[in-house]
Amino acid sequence: MTASAAVREARLWQRHAEMARLGATAKGGVNRQALSAEDVAARKLLASWAQARGFAVSTDAIGNLFVRRAGEQHDAAPVMTGSHMDSQPTGGRFDGIYGVLAGFEVLEALEDAGIRTRRPLEVVAWMNEEGSRFPVGAMGSAVFAGRLALDKALAVRDPKGTTVAAALAETMAAAPVARRARIGGPVAAYVEAHIEQGPRLEADCRTIGVVTGIQGSRRYAVEVTGEEAHAGTTPRAARKDALSAAVAVVAALETLMEDPTDTVRFTVGRFEVFPGSPNTVPGRVYFTIDFRHPDQAVLEARGGRIAAVAAAHARGCTVSVSQLTDVPPTVFAPSIVDLVRDCTAGLGLPYMDMPSGAGHDAMHIATLCPAGMIFVPCERGISHNEAENATPADLAAGCRVLADALTTLANR
Amino acid sequence: MTASAAVREARLWQRHAEMARLGATAKGGVNRQALSAEDVAARKLLASWAQARGFAVSTDAIGNLFVRRAGEQHDAAPVMTGSHMDSQPTGGRFDGIYGVLAGFEVLEALEDAGIRTRRPLEVVAWMNEEGSRFPVGAMGSAVFAGRLALDKALAVRDPKGTTVAAALAETMAAAPVARRARIGGPVAAYVEAHIEQGPRLEADCRTIGVVTGIQGSRRYAVEVTGEEAHAGTTPRAARKDALSAAVAVVAALETLMEDPTDTVRFTVGRFEVFPGSPNTVPGRVYFTIDFRHPDQAVLEARGGRIAAVAAAHARGCTVSVSQLTDVPPTVFAPSIVDLVRDCTAGLGLPYMDMPSGAGHDAMHIATLCPAGMIFVPCERGISHNEAENATPADLAAGCRVLADALTTLANR
Repeated sequence: MTASAAVREARLWQRHAEMARLGATAKGGVNRQALSAEDVAARKLLASWAQARGFAVSTDAIGNLFVRRAGEQHDAAPVMTGSHMDSQPTGGRFDGIYGVLAGFEVLEALEDAGIRTRRPLEVVAWMNEEGSRFPVGAMGSAVFAGRLALDKALAVRDPKGTTVAAALAETMAAAPVARRARIGGPVAAYVEAHIEQGPRLEADCRTIGVVTGIQGSRRYAVEVTGEEAHAGTTPRAARKDALSAAVAVVAALETLMEDPTDTVRFTVGRFEVFPGSPNTVPGRVYFTIDFRHPDQAVLEARGGRIAAVAAAHARGCTVSVSQLTDVPPTVFAPSIVDLVRDCTAGLGLPYMDMPSGAGHDAMHIATLCPAGMIFVPCERGISHNEAENATPADLAAGCRVLADALTTLANR
Repeated sequence: MTASAAVREARLWQRHAEMARLGATAKGGVNRQALSAEDVAARKLLASWAQARGFAVSTDAIGNLFVRRAGEQHDAAPVMTGSHMDSQPTGGRFDGIYGVLAGFEVLEALEDAGIRTRRPLEVVAWMNEEGSRFPVGAMGSAVFAGRLALDKALAVRDPKGTTVAAALAETMAAAPVARRARIGGPVAAYVEAHIEQGPRLEADCRTIGVVTGIQGSRRYAVEVTGEEAHAGTTPRAARKDALSAAVAVVAALETLMEDPTDTVRFTVGRFEVFPGSPNTVPGRVYFTIDFRHPDQAVLEARGGRIAAVAAAHARGCTVSVSQLTDVPPTVFAPSIVDLVRDCTAGLGLPYMDMPSGAGHDAMHIATLCPAGMIFVPCERGISHNEAENATPADLAAGCRVLADALTTLANR
């Protein structure tokens, strides 16, 4: 019996339903932000499932959670899979959690089928992939890969001023598991399953996306400072209206980011106006820019012009632009991409090669070891939304590809 | 001795300093929103000063606070003066509170000089003029004047869901005073002193603004509904980006409101974006419009086009516009305007006639009785701002005009 043949669709779907209860929203989505009470509950649930199957559970100093099925060769570098359990504030039931549960299903399938592997297999739930509570995202995998210093990550604060360190200490106290001595590899290989979070697979009627890489991304914060004034008495000529300036800046940036091929991804997702009183001219606006593209040259050319374009539309206010992140495009190892494609073809599933539009933990782990990803369709491409949806059959199909790929890698 | 001669500049300034401590902000301003703990403290302080001078203190069912100096004819309709003690969230030390303290100084000056008046004189602190906690503003004076139903005002909620009724009950329990049997007049006449909140008096080197009326105003709420989506994967063509649409709507409204004479006042003061996550395309934006003009025809013509202009820039989203308020321009009674001008001239103070750019409680009281206002300069015209400033000499000058005007009216 192959590993993929032992994958149980109903069990995988049931586990999704149980996880979706933790942070469930009225509209059918999930609010399970990193290191929240809901995240604690998810960690406890995963650990309880793991313990029931005799898998070892551990965590590291940044709160990544590991479930390990031993290999015949105990000290061999493990093959890893996984994703994240945290969600957007108004997130869906599949983003991230699918990769964790698909990985766990593979471990259970191997156990059920009595299949041993040479290398250990580890499922990991990376801490804070979304970055919606603690900026920026993919934090746990970045620290694991040595791309972000542990102390820097621990010092990050949420909007209420709580540090990652403090929230992590609370989480560990509430969901205690064994602590690993150190952070990071060696890792033999890494494969992450995820919903596509875009419309292409569904539109092309493919079940599997063989992911070739991840587009690069940059995050910016823009602060516009004007002067608060009375809305009834202050003539336009005498105003330093931060909202009016910020609107002009965003409109100009939309022009800068125009792209007939619709490949540029430009989003202003957070936009806060102070003091926020209807009859006071706003004195300050803070907003974020999320800018992504598969081509590093485009990221540099257009990203490099953001500050100048913003300054040109300041309307008497002061505009400051700071670049928060700079993630170059990722190209996955051909050995993993080829293996995922072969396993998909072997199962007779319709597939397409594609880059990932979203960032994922795999982009950091790809700097440590050969890495790749498997995408499955999600309804209308909707994600980061409570309406996010996927079918049990597609989720199981991706899990079967993952099972065969991981088993092959763990015997190499 | 005249009433104006008994006005004491140092005492009036000292009272401002004491009130400014209640809700004092780090930047030297005041945060004393309606029916807050800070408002309670201000009410107790004013009542304690009144009781020390033997003036009667009372309140009505909407929380307006009255300080009464008896007249020789006890049952004559009183002459009233006053303003408000609540502030913007980041407000200044003079907006509103000056009119209350100037009125109180007049009562003390008359007491000190042993001057009796035929009619009673009442200083009133109107409840919730700013409208920044409970929308909309000038609530207490509107209810007093019968322009807003008491039960409707009591049902208004703040952003946390607390009703005016509940906050008022807490305020009354914390700062108990005698309750009036009924709301409203008769009132013989009303004069309100206020800082200009604009730059004209300072620019023209005038000490007193003889206020001829108040420009009309309209408040609108705009709700833009799009669809949340993943910032990295969703092509522009597939987005319903509520922030992008709202920015286009605001820019188009700025064009609609263009005015070479710079008389139109158009302000977007509150602007909220949901869910507010940097890597999620915003699904909803809520913003307010504050639109003012002295000419009713302009208010109707441009205000009437707001919904159509907003709908034309929806970019695939749904835009709904609701009009929250419609306050027509106010023209003050010539008898009061002339009296204020005569008293000013009699004191030898430089003055100018001017309309008010800001709304004031006087606009409601002017529907009950002859009413007018006295403006004094504020530094650089800055108001609704923690940097708001005025000089002791100007404040006292306005108080002297008020003293002579009120005394004349109270003997008519």
